[in-house]
Amino acid sequence: MGLLNDARWMGAALALSERSRGRTAPNPNVGCVAVRDGVVVGRGWTQPGGRPHAEAMALAQAGAKSRGATIYATLEPCAHVSPRGPACADLLVEAGVARVVMALGDPDPRTNGKGAARLRDAGVDVVEGVAEVPARAAMAGFLTRQARGRPFVTLKLATSLDGRIALPSGESRWITGPESRAHAHLERARHEAILVGRRTAEIDQPRLDVRLPGLEARSPRRLVLSTSGDLRRPGDIAALEGVDHLLVEGGAETAAAFLREKLVDRLLLYRAPILIGAGKAALGDLGLAELGAAHGRWRLTDTRMLGSDRLEVYAAS
Amino acid sequence: MGLLNDARWMGAALALSERSRGRTAPNPNVGCVAVRDGVVVGRGWTQPGGRPHAEAMALAQAGAKSRGATIYATLEPCAHVSPRGPACADLLVEAGVARVVMALGDPDPRTNGKGAARLRDAGVDVVEGVAEVPARAAMAGFLTRQARGRPFVTLKLATSLDGRIALPSGESRWITGPESRAHAHLERARHEAILVGRRTAEIDQPRLDVRLPGLEARSPRRLVLSTSGDLRRPGDIAALEGVDHLLVEGGAETAAAFLREKLVDRLLLYRAPILIGAGKAALGDLGLAELGAAHGRWRLTDTRMLGSDRLEVYAAS
Repeated sequence: MGLLNDARWMGAALALSERSRGRTAPNPNVGCVAVRDGVVVGRGWTQPGGRPHAEAMALAQAGAKSRGATIYATLEPCAHVSPRGPACADLLVEAGVARVVMALGDPDPRTNGKGAARLRDAGVDVVEGVAEVPARAAMAGFLTRQARGRPFVTLKLATSLDGRIALPSGESRWITGPESRAHAHLERARHEAILVGRRTAEIDQPRLDVRLPGLEARSPRRLVLSTSGDLRRPGDIAALEGVDHLLVEGGAETAAAFLREKLVDRLLLYRAPILIGAGKAALGDLGLAELGAAHGRWRLTDTRMLGSDRLEVYAAS
Repeated sequence: MGLLNDARWMGAALALSERSRGRTAPNPNVGCVAVRDGVVVGRGWTQPGGRPHAEAMALAQAGAKSRGATIYATLEPCAHVSPRGPACADLLVEAGVARVVMALGDPDPRTNGKGAARLRDAGVDVVEGVAEVPARAAMAGFLTRQARGRPFVTLKLATSLDGRIALPSGESRWITGPESRAHAHLERARHEAILVGRRTAEIDQPRLDVRLPGLEARSPRRLVLSTSGDLRRPGDIAALEGVDHLLVEGGAETAAAFLREKLVDRLLLYRAPILIGAGKAALGDLGLAELGAAHGRWRLTDTRMLGSDRLEVYAAS
């Protein structure tokens, strides 16, 4: 086996977990593979709505081959019986697995170490902390909800090289090209909800849906920040049920409101190779008193070309 | 020998040519290597002020080893005798070189094919067009002056991710970090002159010099665009003697004036990983009537990290 193999199989489990990102809240989007004699005998990922769990799906697929297998799970198997299904830790013991490798402990107080303990008590070999950093990224929605009581927030900006999002006339179609727009639609499919400000909703009337072949049904819930609605301030997103990943798509004042309250965890910056000059700025007032206060917050985590545009992804630190 | 070797030796000549960028106007910054039996026997680059020429320097270094050597020159050897020195084509024939490989023909009407012809007439094997594209980039200043009667213009912008160059208060020190600023000083050393607008000159009082150890003497000439001076409009740069590379460093209105007149050939964009929001925009009004007109002009040619900042270089097409 060895740690190198463990990291490789956990990579496969993490890839499976991404299939459910944005569709499992309030449950985590877990991925799981069952491996016996170096062969994958079962694969699972949390199903839309949260059940079945990834482990249950992988065990069902593996059947009798679960006996003696190693289970790779991106999160600690749950220890609590629910009306919707049995505890995964019990299922794994019953199936007779030999070993469970997990990336992260489950911060949910109903499990939080109890899943691992139950497995160990039953004689199962348990390894923790494999690929912990990528697992934190893959399940950021669930983990942010658990740790901070609010969704993980991604802010999307699509600008010219000089940071403009429209001409003075308001014309904004199009700054970025079709590859960027397709990528932005894929991002929508990975979020439970999209939010825009009231003015953007009324003036631009964006459809905010997923227009990608085969993914039309993945369009997220649409939300509007408005002084007359349920969401009046950025902080109100904490109360959103079933939303662990929130995509903020504009406009400049809404983006600034989230940034001012440090409620942006990730920045998706699509930039077209054009200069606009006079026009609409990407962001409203952030209330910055001095430049020093702006530094140290954002870290580039990914960048790629999308046609002639460039995408940059920044994480808040 | 072979074309692969030719491209490799020409790469060495091009690297030498960069040593003189910004110091040879109105002469081109040529690089040259002399190779015999697979060994470099002489190296040269146009000296500050334009003389000696690169070929003369390489031949002097090679001495008797020039006989039978191959000469790699980034530009066609000159055919005109000047009070400041003999024609390089004649020097090469006298030295008995066997072969001359050049990247580009010299557009100067005093040479323009005559250098190659004189070499061929003397029985020297002449190859043209090796590494033509990088040679055009390396000698962009001279070539732009020859083709368009004006310097090659680089616009430098240093912005936040949202395109800001200062807080509303005017505070702009610092947006980018020390690695970016050092790189920008190196760029200054590669230009004969730097230009800023009158307001930037008066309010920011930038030193515009090269503050890099050992390169202090490479500080370029400082120019100010001002309605009351010699340079009133961007187009007036055509009349600048001894300036083939011009670096425009700000502010927003001066940058916009050069962009409006399509007088920017290259864009150096230093970006810090910060968001500023309300503040000073990088560019003034470009007079853009519709977004379609902004597209298709800029092409990313280089990008790299400079500390936590990112540099992007764009070429006008």
